[in-house]
Formats: sequence, structure tokens, C-alpha cells
Amino acid sequence: MTGQSSHPVGTPASMRVLNQRAVLELLRRSGPATRPQVARGTGLSKPTVGQALLGLEQAGLVRPAGRTSAGPGRSAVVYEADPAAGYVLAVDIGRERIRLSLVDLGGAEVSRCDERNRCRSASALVRQVRELAERIVGAAGIRFDQVVAKVVGSPGVADRNSRALQLAPNLPGWGRKGLLDELESVLGPGLIVENDANLAALGERERGAARDARVFVLVTVGTGVGMGIVMDGHLFRGAHGAAGEIGYLPYGRFDEQAVLSGELAPPPRGLLEQATAAEPVVELAHELGLTQARNAKDVFTAAAAGEATAMRVVELIAARLAYGIASVTAVIDPELVVLGGGIGRNFELLIEPMERALRYLSPLLPTVVGGELGDDAVLAGAVAVGLRAAEETVFERHVHAG
Amino acid sequence: MTGQSSHPVGTPASMRVLNQRAVLELLRRSGPATRPQVARGTGLSKPTVGQALLGLEQAGLVRPAGRTSAGPGRSAVVYEADPAAGYVLAVDIGRERIRLSLVDLGGAEVSRCDERNRCRSASALVRQVRELAERIVGAAGIRFDQVVAKVVGSPGVADRNSRALQLAPNLPGWGRKGLLDELESVLGPGLIVENDANLAALGERERGAARDARVFVLVTVGTGVGMGIVMDGHLFRGAHGAAGEIGYLPYGRFDEQAVLSGELAPPPRGLLEQATAAEPVVELAHELGLTQARNAKDVFTAAAAGEATAMRVVELIAARLAYGIASVTAVIDPELVVLGGGIGRNFELLIEPMERALRYLSPLLPTVVGGELGDDAVLAGAVAVGLRAAEETVFERHVHAG
Repeated sequence: MTGQSSHPVGTPASMRVLNQRAVLELLRRSGPATRPQVARGTGLSKPTVGQALLGLEQAGLVRPAGRTSAGPGRSAVVYEADPAAGYVLAVDIGRERIRLSLVDLGGAEVSRCDERNRCRSASALVRQVRELAERIVGAAGIRFDQVVAKVVGSPGVADRNSRALQLAPNLPGWGRKGLLDELESVLGPGLIVENDANLAALGERERGAARDARVFVLVTVGTGVGMGIVMDGHLFRGAHGAAGEIGYLPYGRFDEQAVLSGELAPPPRGLLEQATAAEPVVELAHELGLTQARNAKDVFTAAAAGEATAMRVVELIAARLAYGIASVTAVIDPELVVLGGGIGRNFELLIEPMERALRYLSPLLPTVVGGELGDDAVLAGAVAVGLRAAEETVFERHVHAG
Repeated sequence: MTGQSSHPVGTPASMRVLNQRAVLELLRRSGPATRPQVARGTGLSKPTVGQALLGLEQAGLVRPAGRTSAGPGRSAVVYEADPAAGYVLAVDIGRERIRLSLVDLGGAEVSRCDERNRCRSASALVRQVRELAERIVGAAGIRFDQVVAKVVGSPGVADRNSRALQLAPNLPGWGRKGLLDELESVLGPGLIVENDANLAALGERERGAARDARVFVLVTVGTGVGMGIVMDGHLFRGAHGAAGEIGYLPYGRFDEQAVLSGELAPPPRGLLEQATAAEPVVELAHELGLTQARNAKDVFTAAAAGEATAMRVVELIAARLAYGIASVTAVIDPELVVLGGGIGRNFELLIEPMERALRYLSPLLPTVVGGELGDDAVLAGAVAVGLRAAEETVFERHVHAG
């Protein structure tokens, strides 16, 4: 709902709202400015700009940020969008860790936390998210109602009908009905839940490895396997929000006879995920004799140190990931594939065998690069989404209060 | 280039062009109309409409189509966009057949031809296209320069730099440099070359199985395997025009060791195409003992008649296609998969085993339906693309002549 829609068009009140919106937008996009500068930038008259600035300042959306002494005449007040007009809470829920970041409307981080995810049920996880959110908001010395947007990144696909996060087998109980309502009841209004790979893709486009990309994907490989697709700056979600769920890409050996006979039960996780995520990396390492590896990180650390069996495991995983990337390429022909996630971040180790396998698998050789944001990609995307929502929300609140 | 761009804005000449364009658009979209009806529909005054109609009639773009006697006053002249103001040539170049359709600007087919493709080289194919084009234009009793748009559908991806059609291994010599220029030199200006699966997808959306679909794909399986992706009515081509080249989807057995060792040469055709197109259908039939099958059609005819081995072949091919469809679904989550092409058209035989395999392969069960246009899908898409281009071209010609 926009401000205009709640006022009849053409009245002085609606004109005032439109002018304030234009002034605020200019200050947000172009930074601090004087009244004459705002007038030039918006095309509004100086008195109109003065009136708009006054209203915005009274509403706490704009504040004076000093005076300029440049130019011939008197010094002028410089105004800026007040970064403290609202806050955004970004939450990254992963199987291993829960990360939170609190930023002000200017995008500056005011507080952060990063905890192990020890929860064995959805209820426990919802409670932990609430506790961490309270802690981080408290640490910043603000009130919870000043957090006007909350963006939660999670594996899975938010289903509007069941209010559940579907296709997130790595989080226990996460798929149950009404989970989105539970999250909303503990985090309050202004909640946006988005697939974590989608957010990571937006994060890498906002300030990472995909800054100029028109059609690109972020492939994230860690506890699970996922992908975010960005086309012309917008997420592509598919018909049911499940685009990019490449953990479910068919992979490898396919016994048509067995599948057709109904002998085979559908695999508990997606076929590509079963072959390339953290657990299969460890299983493969154990199979090949690297029995001391406790987790995927151990395997990659050993490979980086030149341990032969670990290097072999990494090669095989790279080839399997190439299979997935070749599948993605044959379908949507991206200009860039960004690799992220706990496993994907080992780009330097993966890229050479991956490209060897890609040369066999596909004549459409995609450009594969490593992500630049590492663990922060999901939060960066969540912040970007949250800021856009929050800017709108704080202005709306002001309009409806005014 | 639009008409406006060649005239300074705001002059009487540019106003005349804008008004004529508005009047012509209305007649094209809403059908025949009187001068007062056009005035109401465009918001222009009746004298202005009269002037515009006169100019359009003199240019041969509009013609009187009778008189109306409805209403109280005198009867009025009914005008319509002249369908004979230009023609569109649609060409579907397949490995087996070459199909051409000539339609007028109203979309009515005035001539058609359908010949075997007997060519063994690109030059011979270009010559045959030219001969058939001349024949069909001659049969319609029009001049070649009245054909203002020519749309050629072909396997492969038109590459702007090399002016070649890449990734079309089923057409001999088709990948050679400058082929697009050769086609243009025999067909003349106004040539559009588009991937055949893309055109078939547009055709099914225009007047086939995907009329209301927002995000859908057309998977075409015949001599080759391809796919057209349509999002919100527009083709999605990917970063290099190769989106939907799913013949190159990885399929089945994947020996990482061999691939990594470099022992394996890249396959001559795409892996999914090698497993599901017409040739592999026949090979599989021969393998299983159906030695009398000469082509894929024989196999499907036998399966339809209940021949057990042929039915087994169809089942296995259906399972393999399910693998490809599951790959597409995991990447872009379409709301609808339309199956077309010489093999895909055997939808009734394929769908049951295909869905059995899909239930194993993917929790994101896509809706799969058969195409409605059969052999005509590519031509229908080519006509749709050609009509849009031709409408613009005939008006431009008139503006520049006037």
C-alpha cells in the first residue's frame, strides 16, 4: 500500500506527501544536501522544499547534518535522511549457525551476533531466533518497535498456503504448518522470509562478485545445495517459488528399470545434494580411507595442505558439482556462476577439476567465480531487501500518523 | 527505429504520423470500425481521424470494408486495416522437413508448402529455402518485395559475431561462418532467425496449450532435443542466447574418474539428446530386439498398437525424458511443461511412465501436457513474431515514403 493510495489524488495533502517522498528519496540516493540543492534535484520550488524538509524533520525522517560555508552567500543547513529513523534486522538461519545483523536505515551495522544452531526442533529454533533478536536489539540500545523490517533467510521455499517452509530437510521440523506464523509472532510485523540462496545471490550482486551481472546464479554448497537466480537485478523465483532448488537436480547413475518398476523409494534428499553437500563429502572421504575427517572442513583443510586422498575427494566433488552447473547452464545459460556456501567457498581447490569436468559435460562453458562475501552473503542480501522495505515502511508510518 | 525518431517532436508532420499510427493500431486490435468509432476509440477528433484514414488509405494500409446501416443517421463507411498491405513468410527448417507458410498482415494463410529436406550441405539448404520461398510467393500471386518480414526457425543459436547458427549438429554445415548472411542474401531484408524450440513455445502460447501460462517451457523432442522458455509472454534467451539448449543436459551415468582423467572426449552431441532423440529411440529398439523399426515413428506406432518391446522402449525413453524435465524443474520451476516435436507428440504414450519416473526424481512435480499445434507450432510462432515485425515495417515504409 502506498501513501498516495490512501489520499485522493490532487488534494493539498496528497501533494504534500508526494513532495516529501521526492525530497526524502533524493536525500537517500544522493546523500546530504542543502535546501537549494534539493530544490534543483527535485525540480520543486525552494519554499516547497523547505516545507517538506520541515515535515520530514518533525517526523524524525530527516535531520540537519551541519552547515555548508561554500558559495558566496550565507552558509546553509545541510540535511540528510536520518539513519536512526528505523532499523533492519537481518537473520541468517543455517543448519550450523544462526547469524544476525542489525543495521540502521543508512545501512550501517550497529550490532551483530553469530551463534551455533543447537536446536533440535522448530520451536526451539524459533525461540532461539527471538532471544538472539532481543539480545542484538538490546545491545544496540534501541527499542524492538524501532526495527521496522525483519528479513529471515532460511533454506527452503516459503509456502503461502501452509505458512510453512517446504523443502528444507536439513532443519528439523522446519517444514511444519504455520511455522511462518510462529516466526511472525515472535519477531512482530514487517517480517520477510526468503530462501537463503536467493538472499546470498542478492548480496553478491549488491556488493560482491556479481556487481555488473545481468543474468547470473549463485550456487551455494554447504549443509545443503541451493541456488539463487538473478535476472536484471530481480530474483527469479519460478512459478511456485522453487526455482533454484538445485539440490533436487537429478545426478548420475539412473536405473530407468528400477525407477519405472517402483522398486526405488524417492531419495530422502535431492540427488545432487546427496552427492555434493557436506555429509557426502565426509562419507566419500571415509570411503577412500580418510577416516580421521570429522567434517567437510577437515577434508578441505587436508586437501589445501596437499594430502593426496583429500585432494582426490575434492576432485570428485568438483566433478559432481560440474554436473550440476552444466545442468543449470543448459537450462538458463547464465553469464556468471558464483560459487558460495561452506563447501563452495573452497573455490581455489574446486575450480580446476570442475572446469576439467565442465569441458566434457558442456559446450556452453560458463564462467565460474568464487563468492566475495563468504559467510556474510545471506546477511548482505537480507539487509538489502530489508532496507528497501524499511524505507517504505517508515515513510508510510509518518504519512498515516500525519 | 520508430517513425517519431525521424521527425522532430511536435511538428505537424510528426503529429500526423502519431495520429495515423494510433488509428491503424486501433483498426488492427479492435477490427473494422467507422470514423466516429475510431474517434471514440482513439480520443482524436472526427476531422483528424478522417485525415488520418485518408492518408492510410492512400498508402494502402487501410481500406474501406463496406458500409454500416446501424444507428439513426446515414450509413457510414467501415474501415479496416488492409491485410494485403504486406505479407509474412514463416519458415521452419528441420532435419527432416522444410515447411513454409505465407500469411497476410491479417494473419490469414495465403499459401503453404511442406517438403522433405534432402540437403546434405548448408549451401544446398539455403538454395532450397530460396526456391521454396519463391514458389510459395508465386503461388500466392504476389511480388517478393511485398513480403516485409521473413522469420526462419532453425535448430541452434544464432551467433551475432560469427553470423553462424551454432549448436545445430543435426544440420550438416549449418554451423559455418556467415550462414546468416547467406540466408539474408537469398531472402532479402527483414529476416529474423530464431531458434525453432523458442518459436514453437511462442506458437503454443499464441494459440496452443500454453495460452494462459506465465512461466512455462516447451520441450521439443525429435531429431534433436530443445526447449523454449517463456516468461510473462517473452522469450527468455539467457546470457548468450543458449538458454533452453537442454539437449546438452547431463544425463545418466557419470564416471567422474574417467572425465577427470581426460580419457573421455566430449560427446559429439548433448548427453540428453544422445539418450532421448529419434536416433537413440531406434538404437534402443534394435538393442531390445525390435530390429524391423526403421525410425522412431515405427517404434511409437508399434507401441500404440500394443507391441510389448516397443512399449518397453517408449517407457525407457519416457523415464529419460523425465530426467531432463526434472532437471529443468529444479532450475526454473515452470508452472507448465508442454511436450512437442516428432517424439514428444506421442504424449499419450509417454505421460504415464514419465510421471512414474518424475515421482522418483523430483518432489516438485511439474504439470506436463502435450502440445496442441503439432507440426505447426514452429510456424505459428514464426508467424506471430513476423506479424509484429511486419506491422511496424509497413508503417515505417509509408512514413518514409510520405
